[in-house]
Amino acid sequence: MVEKRKPIKVDEAIKRVMAYQKSGSIEFLPIEESFGRFLGDDLIATHDVPFFNRSPYDGFAIIAADTEHASSTNPVQLEVVGEIGAGSVFPYMLQPGQAVRIMTGAAIPQGADAVIMLELVCEIETDGKPFIQVRRKVKSGDNISLIGEDTKKGTVLAPKGTYINPGVVALLATFGYKQVPVSTKPAIGIIATGSELLKVDEPLQPGKIRNSNTYMVAAQIERAGGKPVNFGQFNDDFDTCFRQVADALNKVDFLITTGGVSVGDYDYLPAIYQKLGAEVLFNKVGMRPGSVTTVAVKDGKLLFGLSGNPSACYVGFELFTRPMIRAYLHCVNPIVKKTTATLGSDFPKPNPFDRFVRGRLSFENGKIIAYPIGLDKSNVVSSLAEANVLINLPGGTRGFTKGMEVSCLLLEDQEGES
Amino acid sequence: MVEKRKPIKVDEAIKRVMAYQKSGSIEFLPIEESFGRFLGDDLIATHDVPFFNRSPYDGFAIIAADTEHASSTNPVQLEVVGEIGAGSVFPYMLQPGQAVRIMTGAAIPQGADAVIMLELVCEIETDGKPFIQVRRKVKSGDNISLIGEDTKKGTVLAPKGTYINPGVVALLATFGYKQVPVSTKPAIGIIATGSELLKVDEPLQPGKIRNSNTYMVAAQIERAGGKPVNFGQFNDDFDTCFRQVADALNKVDFLITTGGVSVGDYDYLPAIYQKLGAEVLFNKVGMRPGSVTTVAVKDGKLLFGLSGNPSACYVGFELFTRPMIRAYLHCVNPIVKKTTATLGSDFPKPNPFDRFVRGRLSFENGKIIAYPIGLDKSNVVSSLAEANVLINLPGGTRGFTKGMEVSCLLLEDQEGES
Repeated sequence: MVEKRKPIKVDEAIKRVMAYQKSGSIEFLPIEESFGRFLGDDLIATHDVPFFNRSPYDGFAIIAADTEHASSTNPVQLEVVGEIGAGSVFPYMLQPGQAVRIMTGAAIPQGADAVIMLELVCEIETDGKPFIQVRRKVKSGDNISLIGEDTKKGTVLAPKGTYINPGVVALLATFGYKQVPVSTKPAIGIIATGSELLKVDEPLQPGKIRNSNTYMVAAQIERAGGKPVNFGQFNDDFDTCFRQVADALNKVDFLITTGGVSVGDYDYLPAIYQKLGAEVLFNKVGMRPGSVTTVAVKDGKLLFGLSGNPSACYVGFELFTRPMIRAYLHCVNPIVKKTTATLGSDFPKPNPFDRFVRGRLSFENGKIIAYPIGLDKSNVVSSLAEANVLINLPGGTRGFTKGMEVSCLLLEDQEGES
Repeated sequence: MVEKRKPIKVDEAIKRVMAYQKSGSIEFLPIEESFGRFLGDDLIATHDVPFFNRSPYDGFAIIAADTEHASSTNPVQLEVVGEIGAGSVFPYMLQPGQAVRIMTGAAIPQGADAVIMLELVCEIETDGKPFIQVRRKVKSGDNISLIGEDTKKGTVLAPKGTYINPGVVALLATFGYKQVPVSTKPAIGIIATGSELLKVDEPLQPGKIRNSNTYMVAAQIERAGGKPVNFGQFNDDFDTCFRQVADALNKVDFLITTGGVSVGDYDYLPAIYQKLGAEVLFNKVGMRPGSVTTVAVKDGKLLFGLSGNPSACYVGFELFTRPMIRAYLHCVNPIVKKTTATLGSDFPKPNPFDRFVRGRLSFENGKIIAYPIGLDKSNVVSSLAEANVLINLPGGTRGFTKGMEVSCLLLEDQEGES
């Protein structure tokens, strides 16, 4: 007997899943290993920037009042009493009538209140001593980058949950984060089901295909920021399957199964959920591919029952599992980012359900164009390799033509949306 | 005495660097570790897809000729002689008057030449035996996915140098790549110079800043696909510096130094290149920031002399070092990908040189908008964290206003261009 399932909308399905979101903990990593992780805590400016009043130019640090009456016809002469390279400080208090040669980025000496640029002075020697001639009035504060001018101590420079890119790494170093608080990766179990599945290194035989879902999903987990844990494949009897699922669930933060969620004779997952006492949040979603995607919850822990079909599995992961991973990593915006684009070619086939068509985003003359790729038969794996978006085509009775406005999910994005 | 340097154009500088590109070798990794690497060889379909004639639907495999005279008023009755689940094969030759129940994805039995969908037949029982009634003519070949229909054996599905995303991983698994040929990561040395530099865990002191370039560049190397090797900081005497550079160069594929390439008293790099006998490809580029970026070559090995200023260092890396890394990884498109965008806010300050302004790309109503971020003082690190593009503003006497068309370099892109 074929069980009748009631499909729910994609947005409603995401909402039901996100009701169970939980945040992970924090671990500390050496800064060298922080790239590609997510901040486990706010990145805070631990000091003012600049930390000291500094010179933005090569030039001479002076006392502005000395130049009060300077002009091209009445140059003021100042004695050069020293030089400050980057990283060094001038050990004396500057006195009236004196100047100090100063390099870009170096600290303004005590007593000085302005810098005059190198190219605006004339360097001379009088009685064996170096002098500069200043031919214009300089105002107090000229060419001095003041303490805290760029960034005030205590400013949050990147919030908790930010993806750590090279620029964030630079900030971490600048502010002394030798050990970086990063979000712990959630451990996500993967079990592949299906009696047609061969192992990757098994020779092909009629009726069978190699298991690609386990490896694809593992890579999707890594891309999202989680840690895949492979529990292998099963195609045994129900009791073995049940024990494997129950056992795996205890060892991970979330569990993904691929296959076995349809209503066929070999689809064990519905019965496994029941025996586990897991609550099924939904078992049919109004979308193609992936309508059989099922999510259940057991003691607050989610079980993602993704389709065994690679394309449907891929879509189900990005829509439902990825946001949970990002939330676990403390991301403010856990949902896959959407953008509006122009459809780059016709997609004539209408479908009563919302479709998520694999596509390729292209930037053309400042516009965003989305091209559907492959035949989009749900069993064609090859187009997944090229896809960087899922084009969301709403269900209805009409097809879609080139030039129409469509919504796309950005698969390689690290920012997301709320 | 200040040495006079002649600036060259950015494109010319890239060309001079790329003349020294070299390809790395290949290593084999378990498929589980291949995500995020680059293919070291073409990914080839090692078999036809489908590998056997298969059913795209749930239904019954039949002999089309049996339905020659079928109609709603004259249904044809076929005996159901078996069932083929996914992964199994039917062991007999189908005979006229017979049908076999077949699941989606299962192999078409010998003798059958069509599939009729489950919902189009009526299942009945006669004399305790199962039959189906077919009420329409079925054509030979109907609903059969033929061997090789999706992909022919030998097809290149992803060329050498392709970034391995989850979709590529799925293909690798499908075609039995248990061990994946990936491009070996180039080892790229980093030496930070500058007497103002403190270590990340040192307390701040007047005149000094912490070394952020080493860690930022290491993350940029990782993002580009290389392996950073940190040789530490130096602020010692010339001979020590020289020995460190010469020693490091022997241990890596490329060497990056940060700082020390200006014309100041503490800028050792020009003299080090000379003593090494390295040929300087250029030591001034007509761009801001990063005009002092220097690239030299010694025995075919490149030394990237990036600026000590974090922003200039960042830009210099993306423009000149990254393409060399991508070429080493066999990427067909090693250069950072460009796109046209609309400037999202004014950038009034003109500059005689081409500028690379840190920016943030935003997708708004199908259009690509680029917003300059931060003050873009070249010493403000904080805006690097937010940047996902460098906006290229050509040199000239005019500023730039919101709405103008600008070119952007996409920092997070994995595809590149040629």
